[in-house]
Amino acid sequence: MKEIGRVGFMEKPVPEPGPGDAVVRTTKALICTSDSHTVQGGIGPRQNLTLGHEAVGIVHAVGSEVRDFRPGDRVLVGAITPDWSDLASQNGHPSQSGAPLGGFKFANTKDGVFAEYFHVSDADGNLAKIPDGIPDEAAVYCADMLSTGFMGAEKGDIPMGGTVAVLAQGPVGMMATAGARLRGAGLVIGVESVPSWQKLARTYGADEIVDFTQEDVVERILELTDGQGVDTAIEALGADVTFQTAVKVTKPGGTVSNTGYFGEGEFVHIPRVEWGVGMADKTIASGLCPGGRLRMERLLRVLEKERVDPTLMTTHRFSFDEMERAFEVSDKKLEDVVKVLVGFPQ
Amino acid sequence: MKEIGRVGFMEKPVPEPGPGDAVVRTTKALICTSDSHTVQGGIGPRQNLTLGHEAVGIVHAVGSEVRDFRPGDRVLVGAITPDWSDLASQNGHPSQSGAPLGGFKFANTKDGVFAEYFHVSDADGNLAKIPDGIPDEAAVYCADMLSTGFMGAEKGDIPMGGTVAVLAQGPVGMMATAGARLRGAGLVIGVESVPSWQKLARTYGADEIVDFTQEDVVERILELTDGQGVDTAIEALGADVTFQTAVKVTKPGGTVSNTGYFGEGEFVHIPRVEWGVGMADKTIASGLCPGGRLRMERLLRVLEKERVDPTLMTTHRFSFDEMERAFEVSDKKLEDVVKVLVGFPQ
Amino acid sequence: MKEIGRVGFMEKPVPEPGPGDAVVRTTKALICTSDSHTVQGGIGPRQNLTLGHEAVGIVHAVGSEVRDFRPGDRVLVGAITPDWSDLASQNGHPSQSGAPLGGFKFANTKDGVFAEYFHVSDADGNLAKIPDGIPDEAAVYCADMLSTGFMGAEKGDIPMGGTVAVLAQGPVGMMATAGARLRGAGLVIGVESVPSWQKLARTYGADEIVDFTQEDVVERILELTDGQGVDTAIEALGADVTFQTAVKVTKPGGTVSNTGYFGEGEFVHIPRVEWGVGMADKTIASGLCPGGRLRMERLLRVLEKERVDPTLMTTHRFSFDEMERAFEVSDKKLEDVVKVLVGFPQ
Amino acid sequence: MKEIGRVGFMEKPVPEPGPGDAVVRTTKALICTSDSHTVQGGIGPRQNLTLGHEAVGIVHAVGSEVRDFRPGDRVLVGAITPDWSDLASQNGHPSQSGAPLGGFKFANTKDGVFAEYFHVSDADGNLAKIPDGIPDEAAVYCADMLSTGFMGAEKGDIPMGGTVAVLAQGPVGMMATAGARLRGAGLVIGVESVPSWQKLARTYGADEIVDFTQEDVVERILELTDGQGVDTAIEALGADVTFQTAVKVTKPGGTVSNTGYFGEGEFVHIPRVEWGVGMADKTIASGLCPGGRLRMERLLRVLEKERVDPTLMTTHRFSFDEMERAFEVSDKKLEDVVKVLVGFPQ
Repeated sequence: MKEIGRVGFMEKPVPEPGPGDAVVRTTKALICTSDSHTVQGGIGPRQNLTLGHEAVGIVHAVGSEVRDFRPGDRVLVGAITPDWSDLASQNGHPSQSGAPLGGFKFANTKDGVFAEYFHVSDADGNLAKIPDGIPDEAAVYCADMLSTGFMGAEKGDIPMGGTVAVLAQGPVGMMATAGARLRGAGLVIGVESVPSWQKLARTYGADEIVDFTQEDVVERILELTDGQGVDTAIEALGADVTFQTAVKVTKPGGTVSNTGYFGEGEFVHIPRVEWGVGMADKTIASGLCPGGRLRMERLLRVLEKERVDPTLMTTHRFSFDEMERAFEVSDKKLEDVVKVLVGFPQ
Repeated sequence: MKEIGRVGFMEKPVPEPGPGDAVVRTTKALICTSDSHTVQGGIGPRQNLTLGHEAVGIVHAVGSEVRDFRPGDRVLVGAITPDWSDLASQNGHPSQSGAPLGGFKFANTKDGVFAEYFHVSDADGNLAKIPDGIPDEAAVYCADMLSTGFMGAEKGDIPMGGTVAVLAQGPVGMMATAGARLRGAGLVIGVESVPSWQKLARTYGADEIVDFTQEDVVERILELTDGQGVDTAIEALGADVTFQTAVKVTKPGGTVSNTGYFGEGEFVHIPRVEWGVGMADKTIASGLCPGGRLRMERLLRVLEKERVDPTLMTTHRFSFDEMERAFEVSDKKLEDVVKVLVGFPQ
Repeated sequence: MKEIGRVGFMEKPVPEPGPGDAVVRTTKALICTSDSHTVQGGIGPRQNLTLGHEAVGIVHAVGSEVRDFRPGDRVLVGAITPDWSDLASQNGHPSQSGAPLGGFKFANTKDGVFAEYFHVSDADGNLAKIPDGIPDEAAVYCADMLSTGFMGAEKGDIPMGGTVAVLAQGPVGMMATAGARLRGAGLVIGVESVPSWQKLARTYGADEIVDFTQEDVVERILELTDGQGVDTAIEALGADVTFQTAVKVTKPGGTVSNTGYFGEGEFVHIPRVEWGVGMADKTIASGLCPGGRLRMERLLRVLEKERVDPTLMTTHRFSFDEMERAFEVSDKKLEDVVKVLVGFPQ
Repeated sequence: MKEIGRVGFMEKPVPEPGPGDAVVRTTKALICTSDSHTVQGGIGPRQNLTLGHEAVGIVHAVGSEVRDFRPGDRVLVGAITPDWSDLASQNGHPSQSGAPLGGFKFANTKDGVFAEYFHVSDADGNLAKIPDGIPDEAAVYCADMLSTGFMGAEKGDIPMGGTVAVLAQGPVGMMATAGARLRGAGLVIGVESVPSWQKLARTYGADEIVDFTQEDVVERILELTDGQGVDTAIEALGADVTFQTAVKVTKPGGTVSNTGYFGEGEFVHIPRVEWGVGMADKTIASGLCPGGRLRMERLLRVLEKERVDPTLMTTHRFSFDEMERAFEVSDKKLEDVVKVLVGFPQ
């Protein structure tokens, strides 16, 4: 990203690690819709900023204080790299360390991962070794997609056998669907209109699909839940209307779990009556992708034991020198793209 | 309440208890702003409905299945009388039993307590004996004011020594203030403009008072918390602007706890940016006054051990035959009224 | 059960329902090891008590106050039938209503389900309709096996991708294994020595099996978790030594979740050093099988959507007139029995 | 501590801070019973180890990476100084970072605070500035006594208006008593036999005192709770018999919260029957004193706003050159000592 609205290649020096840090040589990366948000100015003006926050690679160099990682280690780094001793981290919210959303550093407050080499702060706290059985192109999904999608399910406080609606089946929504299944949901309803995405959502565990272009979503979800509404509604799009639907389809005492990034408007709107005029025990939870070594190790275990196969979401593959086209496909959502995988020269 | 907008006395027969129920002879009652909402049509049209949901009295009669209560017992009944075997109750949300807000029966789906006698369903589950040391005029505050205000603090998930803002210091706000202190808050900031209410709020534990007519509330609260915002913001008014302020003054990872009834507008508005674009780990909790015997027994213990003295909120006293004037004072918020206590003939 | 140590058939009249109750005509039932405990005097002396607490059937009669069930409905009833308005239920612990373990009424404080007809209190709160797609012989597993086993996983507070050990793979252990998988465990280690049970445990989701007759369980589990211990250890046997192992293999900050019934000895022993001398943030949770309509409906949804197939545990089938032999097989654990299903004449 | 069983003064060089660390010049310190445990060999052999973990002082020097502290700052440091990026910290259990109880470094894995200067790792994460209104001799109580005692209350999950028993009213027990009050307990029962400690316990909020030399503790606590037992029992002694009592007096569904250090025996004993044979929903929680800047800031706020005055526990004062006598008084529990404050030369 050269400035708002303009992207392209740049030459930059290979970064140097500080005492606790590492530099990683990128092998695979994924393009995220938030990269598009960033280019459009969603997080404010940025100049000559390297984009990208989903990557795996090989450790190239480590600082003198790093204990557990060595050059040559194959590693995953979360999209979010918290400052673990910050007050927000001590408070249980590492993604908010330093500032609101402050754990989000790559392609925000420092250069991102769409480069041959990238810098990782606090290597011992933020890297995770990739077990042998997991290929790079699977592991890279843990950085953001699994972590964010699963968070939607975890914050949704799904009871065993409970009912869940996941609103929108993009890659985060699909992983929220898989996450809802992994938390023991008894009924997972996916809302989606694109046929190929609907199909993939079913593969990831949606028991029912509601197509908002064909039917009234609120009505249909109430029908599927005997008029009660769901225990948990996961917003996985970041659209005001979807958020409103989430509130409406959640039963009294249930939880709306937000994973979406809201990029527009002064307000996000809670429908007053369906929110029970503020008194129906409906909780609205929200969060930013959890990061850190422990999180990444646990997500890698989920892959290692084949609970979920995220590589089904890889609809497009490009090499790093095709990055501009790769970005265009993701940015403009061409060809029913789900996720674009970028391979780096080795 | 005879119809929307019109109140007055009516003659009705003394109710009969079903097998598990009780009939209580009223001794003291409190008037609530929700009674005004009801008269204004806030819960829809009602005809010839007895108002009132905050009362204590003497058991007059019990059904054949009632185990623990006998005529002559001095008792408290919660404003909310849940159906305890309902699915919502089994789900941990008894106030939502039967329907959204369905535990709210008095002066809603059945006659209320502004009568010489009133009916209580499931006496063993919903009544509590008043210990000898607690006068009626104190115990009656447990029915709604303590239960709702404390709920605001409890759902706010206040850390020991944490920071709390309570937005508006009406009677529920004052009890939320007291509740925040009882949960171990290290700093309680009350927002209020009426001088006599400010003073009472300090008595109930507000360490700081912010007067929204004199200063910018958001700015001032951030200043009082070293720019960080509070751990918990309790909305205790039910106004959209106050709710927005609550979101703004809450730190990332903190909780907005709503106790207010929102009576107007299609939407309640979440300020998008200050909500962290949906990603700042800010939780919005909400609820309806908890009821039931266990809750009432615990609240009575709080009074018995003199943790809080709610009778300081009694600014006005009337006898039952002055009910119309009593209601007018409460309804129009005359003479800096906080709560109006109504005594019944014995 | 005629008295301690003696069982046999008896004639009793068909029970009558009270106003809120139902009488159910039994179709299928399962024999439980707790039935053996009861006969051995585990819950004290009982005379002429009908045994059994796991059953499904057809509603035969309902009381006048029952709203949602009618004669002819095919229903499941939980092994535990709480008094929903009791103080323990209001406190979130319905299985403890009335008295410690007081929700356990069948074959304890009232006649059980090994009879052509049995009585269910609070039909609306304690029965659940069985969806058409689920056969009786599957649904009957929800009453206790799924509910108890899943509880072990739920109370274990398993993090997504976390590590879990389930100590003993009897039927409750197998369902705890399945439950751990349903809660998103990344590694489930089952401890078991019987080969056929090991095999079934793998089918239900054990990633690794540790045979305590072949290796040191603590050592092996530490090895499987890189020396860290598990996030959650589920005790599913009720043996002191197993409980001790559970504490030992749990990492600091982890949870020991107990589902076992401890029938012997004055004490259950916590190994002092491995418990971190009382300071290692290890939580010991415990509980009794959750019951109630909501729980049963959720468990039935788990079966309906084919998350788990409990019928694989049915190693033996008998008709009601073979009950004595059926009980003997279960009681003496003959022929690698897992569960014995009893069919009633229709 | 020179070796097990022998203490005395030693000369050591003033420590140097690493890049993120600080060196603090001690002003006030408190002696803890765990110092005695250490000298007796409770944590294994140690040689020439400086004792002490409760201190405040003035920053003497900081490393180059420290952002928020400067020489001259008056500071508090928690007894526990976690490694915040460790996996246990990421898991929400910083006191267990590095190893079980690994956050406990002072006088364990590094020199303690009974010295003119001591070293603090991760200054930004582990120090807290002391507000002007709080004297050193009050602030020093936050390091361990408030943090541990309050933890007992917090982990006890006390409901608003709930019942609590605190077993033993030593300094941690007194702060657990104060903590129980700060969490909103409606009844706090302190168990203690020493008259001067009983009196102080009442000052800190014990509503009732049970003297175990005069009456049966279990019987008396059941009597005080209408036969139900308490919601929460806090073990604040570290004795097997006290722990057993805690289990016995806790109601089904309640929590035993352990703060005590268990120094003896192979096992800690759970009374089987009173634990509900493993099925009464009684949770046993445990933990080690929480540390870190956020915790210390919150505790200081509790002092600043005068919620609790810990200085009432200071029964003895000595200067640093009287350290040997000071230690003897604490170690041998002479003269009804509660806490011994040590002043350092300035």
